[in-house]
Amino acid sequence: MQKYKLTISYDGTHYGGWQVQKNALSIQHLVQTALTTLLKTPTLLTGSGRTDAGVHALAQVAHFTAEKELDPFRFAHALNALLPLDIRITKVEKVDSTFHARYDAISKTYYYHLRLDSATNPFTRLYSTHVPYPLDCDLLKKACEFFIGTHDFTSFTNKSHLGINCIRTIYRIDIVEEEGGIRLEFEGNGFLYKMVRNIVGTLLDVSKNKRPLSDIALLLTAKDRKLASEAAPPHGLFLAKVKYE
Amino acid sequence: MQKYKLTISYDGTHYGGWQVQKNALSIQHLVQTALTTLLKTPTLLTGSGRTDAGVHALAQVAHFTAEKELDPFRFAHALNALLPLDIRITKVEKVDSTFHARYDAISKTYYYHLRLDSATNPFTRLYSTHVPYPLDCDLLKKACEFFIGTHDFTSFTNKSHLGINCIRTIYRIDIVEEEGGIRLEFEGNGFLYKMVRNIVGTLLDVSKNKRPLSDIALLLTAKDRKLASEAAPPHGLFLAKVKYE
Repeated sequence: MQKYKLTISYDGTHYGGWQVQKNALSIQHLVQTALTTLLKTPTLLTGSGRTDAGVHALAQVAHFTAEKELDPFRFAHALNALLPLDIRITKVEKVDSTFHARYDAISKTYYYHLRLDSATNPFTRLYSTHVPYPLDCDLLKKACEFFIGTHDFTSFTNKSHLGINCIRTIYRIDIVEEEGGIRLEFEGNGFLYKMVRNIVGTLLDVSKNKRPLSDIALLLTAKDRKLASEAAPPHGLFLAKVKYE
Repeated sequence: MQKYKLTISYDGTHYGGWQVQKNALSIQHLVQTALTTLLKTPTLLTGSGRTDAGVHALAQVAHFTAEKELDPFRFAHALNALLPLDIRITKVEKVDSTFHARYDAISKTYYYHLRLDSATNPFTRLYSTHVPYPLDCDLLKKACEFFIGTHDFTSFTNKSHLGINCIRTIYRIDIVEEEGGIRLEFEGNGFLYKMVRNIVGTLLDVSKNKRPLSDIALLLTAKDRKLASEAAPPHGLFLAKVKYE
């Protein structure tokens, strides 16, 4: 028995998200099916976490176990031959039998792309959110700083009713200029369901003066999702990196 | 009566090309329909030239005539509201009644994007051609030089049987490095049907040592499409700029 780590890049546009689900095609399902075909035995794939419908990944990480030894380079090639072109295995690595894609992750990085041009762009429409009004970038920077650190993010997740622990640590939120707009880079020890999109929704409302900067501290202590802004759309979001020891 | 110039950006993935045709949806048809709706009279749109199915445009140019005066900024906004998100009007300008989008063009620039990474990329798959073998860039550069200047491009067009004049001038072919690959920039006084894709097909064959560099001079004098290489795929090609006096 040998455990393997996969790094997977995907365009989430045409999928119902990472996780296997009843009513939509998922990335996990397609990769699992390809693994099952190649290994000739039902094979489970465990991801580092879910991504929602329409959310993309530059480098999602997942693991599986195989009975036989595989050549990582050839196996990546064989998997890609069975997968659609919008899902690509970028790396296959042998890992220790104790490796776990979800529990061993020490940080995750998400990118959220905002286009600030006057007209929407046909080539970035599926990979960014168009902001058709002026953004106050100083205000955006100040708003980001409120989120950095360890907080209870109950107001920024859509699944707090499950009684899960909503305390997470955000290590950094960087604003990086790119062609036609900016990219927000979020790195943290973990992110709750819809947390990045909910934070971006509030950041946008503050940066367009729709709500005051002082709201953020209140939201972080209120622990009430209904008080925060609407989630930003999924297509601007990319799971960029999952870090392990 | 007032003539207007439109600049149009489009993702050609889902269309049968620029030109109105029987069996596929075209960009020209959709923009013409939007114009007809807004101007309340059947309106013809004349483009600078065709682009094939799957070919993209950063800045296609077209003209139309309207009976009434239009506010360019507002009219662009109104057109975009009627068009799908993969076709965007980026500019509307008043022009002289003698302006002609096709006959007045003094140069056109096309980009052809080549990805040279080991695996295909889900995010560039529709906007570049993946070259999964090593390219000899010195050879590519030398091969490009053969095409620059005034030549009979009969060997590089699929419609020479129509007896049209196949002499064109290519002003420059630049090789520009970009993330994950290179972009070939072709600027010329005009391009024949499939000419850029046919040239790129031959450039690729030479650069991967599938045919000798010396073939290019022979092809330019042979005037026989069958002797040149297969056309490169449409999705790597972008109409980047149409220049007027």
